[in-house]
Amino acid sequence: MAGPHPAVAIELAESHMTKPTRRQLANAIRFLAADAVEAAKSGHPGMPMGMADIAEVLWNDYLRHNPSNPDWFNRDRFVLSNGHGSMLHYALLHLSGYDLPIEELKRFRQLHSKTAGHPERYETPGVETTTGPLGQGFANAVGFALAEKLLAQRYNRPEFEVVDHRTWVFMGDGCMMEGVSHEAASLAGTWGLGKLTAFWDDNGISIDGEVHDWFTDDTPARFEAYGWHVVRGVDGHDPEAIKAAIEQAIAVEDKPSLICCKTTIGFGSPNKAGKEESHGAPLGKDEVEATRKALDWPYAPFEIPQEIYDGWRANGAGQLRQAEWEQLFDKYARQYPAEAEELVRRSRGELPADFVAQADAFIAKVQAEGATIASRKASQNAIAAFAPLLPELIGGSADLAPSNLTQWKASKSVTVADREANYVHYGVREFGMSAIANGIALHGGFLPFDATFLVFSDYARNALRMSALIPAHVIHVFTHDSIGLGEDGPTHQPVEHLASLRYIPNNDVWRPCDAVESAVAWKQAILRKDGPSVLVFSRQNLPHQARSEEQVKLVERGGYVLADAEGGNPDVILIGTGSEVSLAMEAKAQLDAAGIKARVVSMPSTTVFDRQDEAYRESVLPKSVRKRVAVEAGVTDFWRKYVGLDGAVIGLDRFGASAPAGELYKYFNITTEAVVAAARAL
Amino acid sequence: MAGPHPAVAIELAESHMTKPTRRQLANAIRFLAADAVEAAKSGHPGMPMGMADIAEVLWNDYLRHNPSNPDWFNRDRFVLSNGHGSMLHYALLHLSGYDLPIEELKRFRQLHSKTAGHPERYETPGVETTTGPLGQGFANAVGFALAEKLLAQRYNRPEFEVVDHRTWVFMGDGCMMEGVSHEAASLAGTWGLGKLTAFWDDNGISIDGEVHDWFTDDTPARFEAYGWHVVRGVDGHDPEAIKAAIEQAIAVEDKPSLICCKTTIGFGSPNKAGKEESHGAPLGKDEVEATRKALDWPYAPFEIPQEIYDGWRANGAGQLRQAEWEQLFDKYARQYPAEAEELVRRSRGELPADFVAQADAFIAKVQAEGATIASRKASQNAIAAFAPLLPELIGGSADLAPSNLTQWKASKSVTVADREANYVHYGVREFGMSAIANGIALHGGFLPFDATFLVFSDYARNALRMSALIPAHVIHVFTHDSIGLGEDGPTHQPVEHLASLRYIPNNDVWRPCDAVESAVAWKQAILRKDGPSVLVFSRQNLPHQARSEEQVKLVERGGYVLADAEGGNPDVILIGTGSEVSLAMEAKAQLDAAGIKARVVSMPSTTVFDRQDEAYRESVLPKSVRKRVAVEAGVTDFWRKYVGLDGAVIGLDRFGASAPAGELYKYFNITTEAVVAAARAL
Repeated sequence: MAGPHPAVAIELAESHMTKPTRRQLANAIRFLAADAVEAAKSGHPGMPMGMADIAEVLWNDYLRHNPSNPDWFNRDRFVLSNGHGSMLHYALLHLSGYDLPIEELKRFRQLHSKTAGHPERYETPGVETTTGPLGQGFANAVGFALAEKLLAQRYNRPEFEVVDHRTWVFMGDGCMMEGVSHEAASLAGTWGLGKLTAFWDDNGISIDGEVHDWFTDDTPARFEAYGWHVVRGVDGHDPEAIKAAIEQAIAVEDKPSLICCKTTIGFGSPNKAGKEESHGAPLGKDEVEATRKALDWPYAPFEIPQEIYDGWRANGAGQLRQAEWEQLFDKYARQYPAEAEELVRRSRGELPADFVAQADAFIAKVQAEGATIASRKASQNAIAAFAPLLPELIGGSADLAPSNLTQWKASKSVTVADREANYVHYGVREFGMSAIANGIALHGGFLPFDATFLVFSDYARNALRMSALIPAHVIHVFTHDSIGLGEDGPTHQPVEHLASLRYIPNNDVWRPCDAVESAVAWKQAILRKDGPSVLVFSRQNLPHQARSEEQVKLVERGGYVLADAEGGNPDVILIGTGSEVSLAMEAKAQLDAAGIKARVVSMPSTTVFDRQDEAYRESVLPKSVRKRVAVEAGVTDFWRKYVGLDGAVIGLDRFGASAPAGELYKYFNITTEAVVAAARAL
Repeated sequence: MAGPHPAVAIELAESHMTKPTRRQLANAIRFLAADAVEAAKSGHPGMPMGMADIAEVLWNDYLRHNPSNPDWFNRDRFVLSNGHGSMLHYALLHLSGYDLPIEELKRFRQLHSKTAGHPERYETPGVETTTGPLGQGFANAVGFALAEKLLAQRYNRPEFEVVDHRTWVFMGDGCMMEGVSHEAASLAGTWGLGKLTAFWDDNGISIDGEVHDWFTDDTPARFEAYGWHVVRGVDGHDPEAIKAAIEQAIAVEDKPSLICCKTTIGFGSPNKAGKEESHGAPLGKDEVEATRKALDWPYAPFEIPQEIYDGWRANGAGQLRQAEWEQLFDKYARQYPAEAEELVRRSRGELPADFVAQADAFIAKVQAEGATIASRKASQNAIAAFAPLLPELIGGSADLAPSNLTQWKASKSVTVADREANYVHYGVREFGMSAIANGIALHGGFLPFDATFLVFSDYARNALRMSALIPAHVIHVFTHDSIGLGEDGPTHQPVEHLASLRYIPNNDVWRPCDAVESAVAWKQAILRKDGPSVLVFSRQNLPHQARSEEQVKLVERGGYVLADAEGGNPDVILIGTGSEVSLAMEAKAQLDAAGIKARVVSMPSTTVFDRQDEAYRESVLPKSVRKRVAVEAGVTDFWRKYVGLDGAVIGLDRFGASAPAGELYKYFNITTEAVVAAARAL
């Protein structure tokens, strides 16, 4: 596999350009990548050099986008799942006319540049999703394609294909090896996502070397087993072969397509092409020069001739394309004004104008009813109340719908060709689920929520992190939130999960104590546009807590005084979340009876509480009161941030056990008595 | 699919037994399961009733075990990856003669019983691994089979097949949907694990209902794409068909086999068979009675006729089998005494007698050398030093060997048919890797370590939890431990990971500050038999720290005074880990110069430190000194447990960024100056 590709020799003869050849257009990518990595003294030149020809054909002949407006709603989505090849993406964005000037490429991998080591959606115009953690970009792409399909299903009308775009995704061997590729590909096949096309960069090289010792899958056969249309054996350096493959992919409308491209990593590098050495380190000054000679590229680093820019620029075509679509959409809006208005609203990520008022009315009703129910049931009630207001809400669970209680009366499976389809049966695929949900959210037009047991948030862990990092407006519902799950035992009982999820930056975690806090948590998660929320619910019933109207409002602040000491001057503060708030309330009653003035702070969201202004936090947890007891059925050390070295924490620092929930609480000593004893001992 | 299987009708005619039929033997499982779930008022009857016929054939005709000695080294391994069907396993263990009396089955899912909701290895004799989190039992089984293959390769000699056993694993649709099935099956195919046989319980039902809307894979084709031998379309209720399939599996010696069994979930239940209702809840008293009639099972709950026991008991055959093997092994030991001795030692999980002395000598040498190197390099040096002492050490990485530095001079890939094979190229499969490593450890004879970047511990997260819960003696190596990783950016920079890993119960986490602490961490991880250790190493160089001999010894205690205030009476304590210990040391120098007496505590392992006696902990962190500053390039709140509300923490509570490491430390204000300022401000 080493040495230059045979096609290189042919190109060498053509030499200097008036109208550049496809290979010359592709070489612009190769050298922008190689030179930027050289300048940064770190990065991954091999993939951009290997996939440049594929990218050139796709972007110049097929990708329907508008570089002047990266937010045009009906654009094709392009995802670089093998995100280490970020310079490929930056080169494409720069050359085709996005707002990514050459200066940014020169500052590849530097602080505050728009060209991070891996593509970051929040930094770089035209980057649809943050990639790097392998396999997840592919799963995001499945989410993009599903979102497109469902929006088209709902809003398109005869002669008005107002939603009509494709999703293209590049994948490497690493993406293919990751388990999430299995989960996402399986669902894409089941859903028949005909507008999704994946390009597999089959270069036979991964970091440990030639892959034949650890990657021997018949990948085309695997994808056929998922119901994909597979185009095999495409020469990834032959533009005509690539075009033919894309045409085949477009022709098959009822299945996603995988185009298997044989490529040479580091294509063009005389001594490192086809070798692992070109993957993740600069080629080195001499080798870049040798590559310049081999590919007949006489230009200085970051110098791109005007002819090359002319061959790449897509702003004009993009503007025209968008203008045509806007004309169509205007006609559509006249004929289907309600649909158009709703689609525009959804595409902007705006909530219905009356959402907050309606949500608050529901919350007031829940407070008035005062039901003692499991918070997972309260969550279902909230979904059922909010979903009719929010056609953008799209639910789902990893095969635990009857346990997570994530289905509601009007939910309809996306496998049904129905305009109202809004529920995804993800199967037992937690990681794929959350990564797909990230894609659905990023596409726009949807507010997705997904669900599993809290303990299996582990399986989706990095996709949850990505929700927060990208950031994506996704709501993750986790039920069965503690040893309260009971008999299924320690493999199913979360212990460290609440604390661990709270430590993910930009991740709002809620663990409500009753139906009211559950409804508020849902509302806040819906309102929060700049990141994900994790909603954690109990399997078991939770008693209702009395609240004033003002207290109901305070739930939004993440932590609040649920029951104060007489006179508001407590001897001791009891802090609880979720199912343990009722223990704190019972403990307060006993302490009060014993003449110890206790305040109970309900803390459904530490993350939200920590964001409140200092005065508010001080009003809830006054510095002067150092006698504090936190109670939560999980690891105790997390709570030291609120109780310090002087307080006490009632919780669980070991794995759980298999037994009825009530017995477990007693056995692990998470009881009213334990809270009282701890408070007294301070 | 509803209603009794046609075969039921035939059985009904046969009726009461002298020598029981296969169906009657299988029905004993069905009713033990249904009745135990009924008694517990929770559990999963459907799977045991569906897979009973398969289990009966496998256990009575093929499984080579000895119920009187669950630890016999050359036994076949049986894994129930669909662990919710735990009653199937308990019934099998009970009936075949393991030490699991009927009383334990009556106490299914009760506190302190040996019959937890999901099979727990640490509680129940005969359970090879803890299962429940779907797909991982299958990956464990791949680890078992790899361990067998490698031990056979190393120790067997002509006419002495002293290592010669099979691994059998049951899987449900859930296991198949999980991404980890892809990772593990791919590797099993690549490795050609001919003694691994998986039974897929193809019952078409998962919790959300009939799977056709979310699980449409052609699973046999998928496994063939991995290089497996697949037996399709087996009637899982026809013993002859099952036998024929197993014979085919055994006949194919160079590939793992998948036997695809069509079954009816809840087989025998007139109204719930073939339906989701039989999956995860008691059938109900009336339905169990109806099932008794349908299957002609006239016995009371938990009543098993002697003839049935006689048909199941495997103690006699097992004893004989073990005795034969012991005879063989005795001869082997005479002919190959060194090999036999080593194999016995390894099978017992004992270290070589001189290991500790040799390790201490190495550590002393490292301290004397005082090299400034990256701790990942120090880790590699430790591996290179310890591996020649430990033939049981088997390394590996998820395609990051050149970055994790997990290969060493004498490491040999397991894909080579070599007696010394001891290195696994896992490919980009973090979850599969760690779950397979768990299986290798549980098999016995090996001490596995695996590796990836710390941030991608997320991908393996639940397998890491399982290492601790099972528990399994596995060493997880994570390099590139912070923003110190630099240019790859926030997707690759761990922030919350150290804290999150420390919160997993029974999980020892080490983050050494130099080569010496790295070597000690490796030693302690090797010595720790009752659970996993996580070793976290830097990408960048770390300066050597001066230590007395006594201090070198104290590293083992997880936290120790690295540099004390003059007179041992500090004004302020600076606590650091890993790369930040050097910042603390520089800060101490500045504080000392300013007349503020500072102590530096190096805390490579908070988990180990927390286990020390109170007097020792007090000697390191005296209660009287409340001015404390912790510094670690990760989330700050974790450290409140050591610095309380009065101390300060220097760290990072947001995602990182893409830039050279040095710039990031400055940008995020994790510097000597910040530590000094924080200490002064207290």
